[in-house]
Amino acid sequence: MRREDGFARRAGALLRAAANDLKRDDENAERELGLDRGTFAQYVDGTRALDWDLIRKAAEAWPLNERDLLPVREDSTLGVDVMREKDSRASSRVLSRAGEPYYEYRDTAMSRMASYRPEWIRMLRVVDDNKADNPLVQWNHGHLLYQFTYFLGPVNYYYRWDGVSHCVPMETGDSVWGLPFAPHSFTARTDDEPACILALTYGGALVGDAQRELAVLGRPTARALAVPVADGTRMPGALLRSFMDAGAVTTGELADRTGLSPQRTAELADSSDTPTRDELVLLARGLGVSVRDLLLPGTNTVDGVTVQHARTARTWDFPGVGTAAYEIVKLAGDPLHPHTSALQADVLLEDLDQAASLTTYQHQYLYVLGDVQVGIRWEFEGERFEETLKPGDSAYVRPQVPIAFAATDGGRPRVLLLRIAGAVTPEVRHAMGTMAAGGIDRYVAEDRLWYSKEGN
Amino acid sequence: MRREDGFARRAGALLRAAANDLKRDDENAERELGLDRGTFAQYVDGTRALDWDLIRKAAEAWPLNERDLLPVREDSTLGVDVMREKDSRASSRVLSRAGEPYYEYRDTAMSRMASYRPEWIRMLRVVDDNKADNPLVQWNHGHLLYQFTYFLGPVNYYYRWDGVSHCVPMETGDSVWGLPFAPHSFTARTDDEPACILALTYGGALVGDAQRELAVLGRPTARALAVPVADGTRMPGALLRSFMDAGAVTTGELADRTGLSPQRTAELADSSDTPTRDELVLLARGLGVSVRDLLLPGTNTVDGVTVQHARTARTWDFPGVGTAAYEIVKLAGDPLHPHTSALQADVLLEDLDQAASLTTYQHQYLYVLGDVQVGIRWEFEGERFEETLKPGDSAYVRPQVPIAFAATDGGRPRVLLLRIAGAVTPEVRHAMGTMAAGGIDRYVAEDRLWYSKEGN
Repeated sequence: MRREDGFARRAGALLRAAANDLKRDDENAERELGLDRGTFAQYVDGTRALDWDLIRKAAEAWPLNERDLLPVREDSTLGVDVMREKDSRASSRVLSRAGEPYYEYRDTAMSRMASYRPEWIRMLRVVDDNKADNPLVQWNHGHLLYQFTYFLGPVNYYYRWDGVSHCVPMETGDSVWGLPFAPHSFTARTDDEPACILALTYGGALVGDAQRELAVLGRPTARALAVPVADGTRMPGALLRSFMDAGAVTTGELADRTGLSPQRTAELADSSDTPTRDELVLLARGLGVSVRDLLLPGTNTVDGVTVQHARTARTWDFPGVGTAAYEIVKLAGDPLHPHTSALQADVLLEDLDQAASLTTYQHQYLYVLGDVQVGIRWEFEGERFEETLKPGDSAYVRPQVPIAFAATDGGRPRVLLLRIAGAVTPEVRHAMGTMAAGGIDRYVAEDRLWYSKEGN
Repeated sequence: MRREDGFARRAGALLRAAANDLKRDDENAERELGLDRGTFAQYVDGTRALDWDLIRKAAEAWPLNERDLLPVREDSTLGVDVMREKDSRASSRVLSRAGEPYYEYRDTAMSRMASYRPEWIRMLRVVDDNKADNPLVQWNHGHLLYQFTYFLGPVNYYYRWDGVSHCVPMETGDSVWGLPFAPHSFTARTDDEPACILALTYGGALVGDAQRELAVLGRPTARALAVPVADGTRMPGALLRSFMDAGAVTTGELADRTGLSPQRTAELADSSDTPTRDELVLLARGLGVSVRDLLLPGTNTVDGVTVQHARTARTWDFPGVGTAAYEIVKLAGDPLHPHTSALQADVLLEDLDQAASLTTYQHQYLYVLGDVQVGIRWEFEGERFEETLKPGDSAYVRPQVPIAFAATDGGRPRVLLLRIAGAVTPEVRHAMGTMAAGGIDRYVAEDRLWYSKEGN
């Protein structure tokens, strides 16, 4: 039943695409890669497996990198991939600080197809106050990944920003979203009951190609490319200035293009004032960009984090009042990550046939909270699947897979959903929308030489 | 003088980052990857070279892909990498259609650090009319890469969109920017003089991680993720609907959050109307996103292309009127690619000491047009470099490298500049601006375990 991972086929398509991009037909490719006549087509169609030697050869002969020819693995071939609680438990490991046990870590569902690194963590250090400078608290150095944290039990959350330490006592259902590289820690307020978190870290756009490119460009260039967002009035000028540099556009030329005065364009470019809405439209047109490109993302973070307590969280019925299959709670998030959504869903119906499906363009992680098991149903490639998930089970769900939940065993099951964007950015989604007819299919898996040797 | 490519060092940093993301310290990593005690740190610091075996082992034991552990090569280690005209000529190859020579291709400057695939192409097919259906014209199937084309001599440009073929007679200095996968062709209107183009293709955001992810997600998912942009009024609803799906937000809930009526939110969500500016602000706040996320990119393309004739192109002095070092001409481009800029620069000054520097966050490609050589000077890592480029020479310039041009041999040299974004998207640039102190440096090259075993 499990479909075969088409790794070899995808590698073949990448090889064809690379040769097309370089305007090499089969004969040229064979000569430059030292291949026997007629074998290039076999590598492309997957009848010969692409091996490391060929990849290395291509990265030497052609201006590309080894990784450019490597596809990703498809380890979730049924749409949803479940990790059972007992397997999470088997991955348990204790991390110590200063020789003393501090955390118990357990892996939960992960996939090679998404940047989630979700851990269940139990706090082994107990404190008897809520002071941020309690010497029993062991801080980390912070890490690259964004972290969404869901709290289970009497956990103290500590975070440090600009050198100032904070402590927030949390209860079950509270959540927090935090920025990369801020030091943080967690402790238990009591050892009478378990104090745990779901530490759902993910790299998003920060990992992958961008990180590899910046590793080559180096730290000074990376610092120069960072858009400052600390100060509201400073930022719009930074973007404007970037686009002016890109187009070698002077303040005088920008004035000519927009009808604004040279004084005004200079003022906007050096960030001493913020453009009005009407000016934004003129500036975008003058620079040949869209208004969206001149706008900065907002943020609600304070000291690097957004805290959402359960008691003040927004709650609503889905798909509608009176026809509710779920009661949804909005968990912590921030406009800096518009494509990340954290939700808690209480499952209200007992019959999967009546349960509404949830579908999104995002990758999705789910974890069964509470102590009631839940029935799930999903559709993938025309087939329908059902499973029962127990408390502590977790799963990865592929984008666009409709999934429904029901209390098939009674009670009121509770599920955590964390949805994140993958590498398919809005820019790529827009670009796919503008491709010539048939383009999307070829983009996903190039299947031909870019021209016909036989002619029209 | 040439610096060493730090490939091994970058690979080591990726390995450390991968282990950190998975919350594995050295001992855990060694056990899971079958490494000898104490060797993990050696792989990380580059004293042991990461090899394919270890990469494969990590991709099996950990939920990651082989390519996640592979850095890119640094093949431009001096800031600017020149390809001489004679080397371009040596790469010459003739591509035939239906057994007849049709194009002569020559490579120009490329780098493993950027997605350019720039070719100099000479048209070998001569036509005696400007009809799009001339049977002598051999069309291709279109290709994934975006194409910016600069015309040199009497070239006919053919393109097809939605099944309709077009022919535009071009002159030297004309340019065109075209969308992926649209079939196109080029011919010469005469064989009295050379008819050539610079076919500057590039993948931008479409290649790399996004393409590999979509190859796994498959074509139906890719089609579902594409944002339709054909019809101005339809689009805003598509984005709104995406964010509503992401947050499991019903039209009723959106009405509650925004203060709009349920009828109005339904109308906006099903795209039967476009939100006003004030509604956009309410919708963004209600969905926890920024206004920019709800706005679509504009486009000036007609039938998939933007044509810019030299006779109507915008021209201005840089850095200012009266102090001009260059006369700049804006070549073809489109708001769909705000981070692509195509410029022609006429070099006005003879002294490099007086010439203004051009700096941008983008990758840059340059080609010496005309028949006058040009002196260039750039700065990289605190050093200053100078070169003389002859007509037909081309170069790749790294982001943030200041470069100046002078007519060191007299005359009025002319240079083509094509600047494109790399993998460091605006999202990443914004994210770097919000990292905790010291975060950017660690993001570029992780140098530590995420915590100290010794404790605070």
